Amino acid sequence: MPVIQIHLMEGRTTAQKQALMREVTRAAAETLGVSPQSVRILLQELQSGHFAVAGEPKYADHDPAANGHAPQPESVTSN
Amino acid sequence: MPVIQIHLMEGRTTAQKQALMREVTRAAAETLGVSPQSVRILLQELQSGHFAVAGEPKYADHDPAANGHAPQPESVTSN
Amino acid sequence: MPVIQIHLMEGRTTAQKQALMREVTRAAAETLGVSPQSVRILLQELQSGHFAVAGEPKYADHDPAANGHAPQPESVTSN
Amino acid sequence: MPVIQIHLMEGRTTAQKQALMREVTRAAAETLGVSPQSVRILLQELQSGHFAVAGEPKYADHDPAANGHAPQPESVTSN
Amino acid sequence: MPVIQIHLMEGRTTAQKQALMREVTRAAAETLGVSPQSVRILLQELQSGHFAVAGEPKYADHDPAANGHAPQPESVTSN
Amino acid sequence: MPVIQIHLMEGRTTAQKQALMREVTRAAAETLGVSPQSVRILLQELQSGHFAVAGEPKYADHDPAANGHAPQPESVTSN
Repeated sequence: MPVIQIHLMEGRTTAQKQALMREVTRAAAETLGVSPQSVRILLQELQSGHFAVAGEPKYADHDPAANGHAPQPESVTSN
Repeated sequence: MPVIQIHLMEGRTTAQKQALMREVTRAAAETLGVSPQSVRILLQELQSGHFAVAGEPKYADHDPAANGHAPQPESVTSN
Repeated sequence: MPVIQIHLMEGRTTAQKQALMREVTRAAAETLGVSPQSVRILLQELQSGHFAVAGEPKYADHDPAANGHAPQPESVTSN
Repeated sequence: MPVIQIHLMEGRTTAQKQALMREVTRAAAETLGVSPQSVRILLQELQSGHFAVAGEPKYADHDPAANGHAPQPESVTSN
Repeated sequence: MPVIQIHLMEGRTTAQKQALMREVTRAAAETLGVSPQSVRILLQELQSGHFAVAGEPKYADHDPAANGHAPQPESVTSN
Repeated sequence: MPVIQIHLMEGRTTAQKQALMREVTRAAAETLGVSPQSVRILLQELQSGHFAVAGEPKYADHDPAANGHAPQPESVTSN
């Protein structure tokens, strides 16, 4: 322990995700006084538009919908 | 708060998923007496066949396996 | 499906929690066009102080720590 | 891997929970062909009344509310 | 109940995943003394490299990165 | 985003848990290049004995069961 689940919007580079996992592990191990080996991280990416604040979907930066070009719901099929 | 994780079988339209997030947010905000802004929703789609009831996989409507055409995994080793 | 996990700060009344589960179920069933019977909700309360925004713990309303009376952990070693 | 989260209604004996974790581990290791050592289980108990089907709360067997003696929501304070 | 979430590295065959869900259901039903019908399993696959131990990413067997051919982080775009 | 769930064995001090949330937030914000305000942490403590490796329960340090004094569940039926 601990087991840490990180929910992240898709669109980050592999380098960012590896740094995230490495530094969160370091932070957890240091503050809890445990071996880094005991820290496990599960990184779960959310699809763009699958996170909502106040009921409004949020989009990844690379997603055209993030720039005001909202998808036309009637004609969009989910992936 | 609250933070709400919704696990949903893949295959819904974007419009359905947006309505789901909007109305669940409204329901949570109204019953708890909090601002919609404080409600966060994470929508996580399960792949067709990755949800099981009584040990039997369930499929999305669009999946041929949902209509009795179960995939024939050539290397099934368990009974 | 869907299976919905709601993470909520402790301190709500039973009536609020029952209304929350009932109305979120209704919202999900209506927007997805499924039977309410297919909606399952897991309500998981977080202890006061076990939710953080910007690294700062948030407290339940009934918790003295919520009113500026932060607990004095006698052995705080980090800055 | 795998990491397995089991959400269980409170009220089971320690013996039942230990058997559950042991046998689920065995089932996962055997079907996946991995070492039991690689299987981690997190057992998370839900409070009685904190699981809902069709919007209706479900109670643990030992809970008076499970036997038709529903709590009076207005006067019940959450734990 | 119970509701069981299984987090698994991607790359398993459909047959393995179906056996996993079937046998974990059986193990849970038998040890808890409940009907298999009451057991629900959500199988969530992690992308190769999205699980970390000691801060180091772990890869699926089929992933070239699993064989010492680590991706070049600067030039890899996340999927 | 991100939303981070930390599953931790019970028994840590409030100071340790606050340091954990603060430093994990810092690590996530720095590696992702986002505002700390966008990072939310849910800390979920597991009861001693509710985490298993290789099917064997693990106990919190303060728990007598952690020191070889396994609880004697009077009705253990499995070996």
